[in-house]
Amino acid sequence: MTVGILGAGQLGRMLALAGYPLARDFLFLDGGPGTPGHQVAPSLFGGFTDAKLLDELASRCEVVTFDWENVPAEALERLAARTRIAPPRAALATAQDRFAEKALFAKLGIPTNRTQAVDSLADLQRAVKTLRLPGVLKTRRLGYDGKGQFVLRQPADIDLAWQTLGNAPLLYEQWVPFDYEVSMIGVRSLGGQIAMYPLNRNLHRDGILRLTRAPWKAPQLEAAARRHMRRVLTHFNYVGVLAIEFFVTRGRLLANEMAPRVHNSGHWTIEGAVTSQFENHVRGILGLPLGDTTARGHSAMINLIGRMPDQAALLKEKSLHLHDYGKSPRAGRKLGHCTIVETTAARALQRATTLIRRIDSGKL
Amino acid sequence: MTVGILGAGQLGRMLALAGYPLARDFLFLDGGPGTPGHQVAPSLFGGFTDAKLLDELASRCEVVTFDWENVPAEALERLAARTRIAPPRAALATAQDRFAEKALFAKLGIPTNRTQAVDSLADLQRAVKTLRLPGVLKTRRLGYDGKGQFVLRQPADIDLAWQTLGNAPLLYEQWVPFDYEVSMIGVRSLGGQIAMYPLNRNLHRDGILRLTRAPWKAPQLEAAARRHMRRVLTHFNYVGVLAIEFFVTRGRLLANEMAPRVHNSGHWTIEGAVTSQFENHVRGILGLPLGDTTARGHSAMINLIGRMPDQAALLKEKSLHLHDYGKSPRAGRKLGHCTIVETTAARALQRATTLIRRIDSGKL
Repeated sequence: MTVGILGAGQLGRMLALAGYPLARDFLFLDGGPGTPGHQVAPSLFGGFTDAKLLDELASRCEVVTFDWENVPAEALERLAARTRIAPPRAALATAQDRFAEKALFAKLGIPTNRTQAVDSLADLQRAVKTLRLPGVLKTRRLGYDGKGQFVLRQPADIDLAWQTLGNAPLLYEQWVPFDYEVSMIGVRSLGGQIAMYPLNRNLHRDGILRLTRAPWKAPQLEAAARRHMRRVLTHFNYVGVLAIEFFVTRGRLLANEMAPRVHNSGHWTIEGAVTSQFENHVRGILGLPLGDTTARGHSAMINLIGRMPDQAALLKEKSLHLHDYGKSPRAGRKLGHCTIVETTAARALQRATTLIRRIDSGKL
Repeated sequence: MTVGILGAGQLGRMLALAGYPLARDFLFLDGGPGTPGHQVAPSLFGGFTDAKLLDELASRCEVVTFDWENVPAEALERLAARTRIAPPRAALATAQDRFAEKALFAKLGIPTNRTQAVDSLADLQRAVKTLRLPGVLKTRRLGYDGKGQFVLRQPADIDLAWQTLGNAPLLYEQWVPFDYEVSMIGVRSLGGQIAMYPLNRNLHRDGILRLTRAPWKAPQLEAAARRHMRRVLTHFNYVGVLAIEFFVTRGRLLANEMAPRVHNSGHWTIEGAVTSQFENHVRGILGLPLGDTTARGHSAMINLIGRMPDQAALLKEKSLHLHDYGKSPRAGRKLGHCTIVETTAARALQRATTLIRRIDSGKL
């Protein structure tokens, strides 16, 4: 039995590696032979809008999933008419539109920062008047890793923001000063079983996730995050892994965004949890019982961005787990990650901090 | 950079899955497209004696390793002239011949049971006279999982044993009543770094490994096993993972055999140790620093033989890790294994025992 994956990036690659021990085959659909996914499983090479390839993928796979949430709606529609797809299309459609996402959070009673849709300069001026400055103008679609965002601090920024982003549907978001970011990774199986991982604390740099620590022990926040996660999973009759990112502000959560897929802040689960998010996504979409999401020790996951440290030097680090995605280096590109599992949270943080410092200074 | 693997069985498959995160590609050489290895990496299809294929493998790979120790010497010779191979040929040659293996143990001062080479009925009669009955007549080559063995209990068995096995080089081994079997998995890197896993206790049934428990806490036995392992690794300037099986008799070790490869009794290290035997074999043959071999919790590894239990039922078991090799069922065939990691050795054993009972009774 074969699982199809739209997008053969590192997420798809790690899905296949986690799914092989369950005796499944994998088939990617993505651009060309150099992808991280294609290095570990066969691929159909082409665009997500190629009807012939989509039909071939559908005919060869019992279920099709995604390693990228911005798959075009028409591709999803074509696939859904021919095979089962998971996560559900409605969840992808919502996650593809930041305004729809915020509207959903509000509808489900999940606290989120205030937002207005912006389709004209006049809209933006109105939104700034209502929600005040500072604020963030964002594209509604295709934003990730901090791309497609403009921070407005003073009235003079309005015009520049509009000139920069104004050729796409936008939203204006109230600026919320936050203390830190956390994320919750949940999974729901085809049969309706739900499981959630411990809470992650995330640190970004230049808009890209740099460090995740888990489990982040904050029982009240975790309980709230679990409630919110359950609502979204249930709302969509969701199938597979879902991630929700929250800001923590004055001790409470504000939902920032969701990702209908395995998530970078869940990579630590490969070694740091009994069952990884990747295996649980595969289990979930196949209708198999979900695996135990309990943490094993205290993990710190560091993204390796732009340049791979010397591999031998990195592997000298005790109990460090390297995941090199086999990508060619480029500024700002996620090339791999490594996870340190320790006996205490303090020790994991201390080692991660030292490691990041050594990487940043070029000593590693 | 590509690692070549002769033999695309489950061991090769797990080597590739463990090596992908180190950004290596893998290329198998084995019979046909249905192998466990080929499901996860490309293969050259053919025999180990096909000179053209061996040359292609050598030209495409920076190093070639094995998932089977009975690779013909000529194949090794051809490869060694064209690329690097690991583990070393001398170790494979010794492991391919049970008599040479015992002779090596004796030479290195590693206790082993007494043995005589047998090439004729007269040899066998002499050996029985010297080493007494009971004893075991074994083929010197190509024995595994209890195959190629004949137990002699009384003088009348001599003729039958000779008729059964007499068309191959043999050895006669003193029968040693033993209490149980343990194994030691060690690894030596290209640079000479040595690491060893905790001791495994193994239970066989019908000559096939059924259950491994690790770490088996027997400090004196473990210390002796480590000494013996170090001697063999050093003797060969060994590179990669090596396994040695020992009988435990009256509180001391008797070396039974060695396997110059990753070993079934080390499968628990995937989830039960910080770094798996598979990753450490890949690290070792690539000259990378070896990973931490410390155990995480207490593991019990159960081989799934002849018939796969119902997958969904099996995955319902808490903190059970399934490895289905994707093979078609056949009596006596290793189709997969599962590992349970628990907080105590007693609990791991208890759960494994219950699971084996349910599998054997067909309830799972």
